[in-house]
Amino acid sequence: MAHIIYGIHPVRETLKSSHPVFEKLFVAAKEPPPALKEILAYARQKQVPVTLTTKDELDRLTGGGFHQNIAGLIQELPYADLEEALARSKRGETGGLFLILDGIQDPQNFGALIRTSVGFGAHGMIIPRDRAVGITPVVMRASAGATAHLPVIRVTNIAQTIDRLKGEGFWVYGAAGEAKDPIYELDLTGDLALVIGSEGKGIRPLVKKKCDRLFSIPMAGLISSFNASVAGGMILYEVMRQRSMKKSSV
Amino acid sequence: MAHIIYGIHPVRETLKSSHPVFEKLFVAAKEPPPALKEILAYARQKQVPVTLTTKDELDRLTGGGFHQNIAGLIQELPYADLEEALARSKRGETGGLFLILDGIQDPQNFGALIRTSVGFGAHGMIIPRDRAVGITPVVMRASAGATAHLPVIRVTNIAQTIDRLKGEGFWVYGAAGEAKDPIYELDLTGDLALVIGSEGKGIRPLVKKKCDRLFSIPMAGLISSFNASVAGGMILYEVMRQRSMKKSSV
Repeated sequence: MAHIIYGIHPVRETLKSSHPVFEKLFVAAKEPPPALKEILAYARQKQVPVTLTTKDELDRLTGGGFHQNIAGLIQELPYADLEEALARSKRGETGGLFLILDGIQDPQNFGALIRTSVGFGAHGMIIPRDRAVGITPVVMRASAGATAHLPVIRVTNIAQTIDRLKGEGFWVYGAAGEAKDPIYELDLTGDLALVIGSEGKGIRPLVKKKCDRLFSIPMAGLISSFNASVAGGMILYEVMRQRSMKKSSV
Repeated sequence: MAHIIYGIHPVRETLKSSHPVFEKLFVAAKEPPPALKEILAYARQKQVPVTLTTKDELDRLTGGGFHQNIAGLIQELPYADLEEALARSKRGETGGLFLILDGIQDPQNFGALIRTSVGFGAHGMIIPRDRAVGITPVVMRASAGATAHLPVIRVTNIAQTIDRLKGEGFWVYGAAGEAKDPIYELDLTGDLALVIGSEGKGIRPLVKKKCDRLFSIPMAGLISSFNASVAGGMILYEVMRQRSMKKSSV
């Protein structure tokens, strides 16, 4: 299946990454402004063919998206392999870090979680094949192009994947509003996979049971939950904080 | 000027709060489902008149918004007074906490920042009268109704407001990507106002100069910034963490 990535930032970030590879680019500007020129020069260097087209055609291709006169076609969805990502996580200086999203539905939240994960150097994001949003152009846009920098792994069975991670020595901690332990009381410096549930419903019971521990983010009480991408940001921030403090105290 | 708030969650949260007060509600369901029934019972209790209308009329009123057959009219925008919010912040158990948004443009980000601020019990949000998004129905929706629970203060001059806060013994710290100090090395337990700049441009130079200190959130480098509402979430989380730790160590 073919996919269209559009907009200056997403196209540039995808061009920069090794995977996925554009089959071709479409540009709708006879005299491209500097930002587009830079992309076109980069495409030439990477030997990606560029086709001159019209704004109307780009509107059609992107379903009326905010394409900024540039779009690209990819054939493959850029999903990654768990074993490869695991192997890479073992080579880092800090502990491994995976995020497991148990059923995030909102592409804006998914994209923002990818952006944050890249910002904190996570080794991969694990999502279920069903009942969840996958990598779509909207997700790529919401991630501000960061999707190109993060292994996103799609699995059939989250519970089995958790067993696989545990087999590699990972601790698996799940975010649950009802949990008594605040996240900052957990040691997050070792090999770690963090589970975040769907907006509204949280982690499914079967997956929750598989977690070594559950944690919460203490709240003032007037609202019942944070936005999923904001909560994910706090959780990943806390991992970064603990790992930075540990490094500087060694 | 009149404003329309719509959708089950925003209308319910606004009904629950003391400010703003609905002038009337519009409902487009002859046999309302349980969620709407609950709102209507609550409206009766609060003596807000309810008008039965059509879906088409609600589409028109809300500009085609996701109204879920319910909308309400308010006359006043729910902005708050700095002095009142300051006085209230002095009566709390923990230090005062204000967020200053120096030019946030995206209503989704603004709404999410309001939701997070309420979740961590902030005493108020300060925004400039110009060059920034104000409280709009989109912001209210994005805050999942939390706007009703947070004093949002609109000021003409952010720099002067910072001086006023300093006069009340507040420390003013600004988020700046280039700052050397990671946020977790600052003491965030006292009376505190945190400044977050606009998406892309950050804090304006004049406002930055007014800050007592600048801090950053350390990043892995593949991307240059976090989403503004996610970064704000991390910052407020860190304040909550430090204050909780301090409380439990006393």
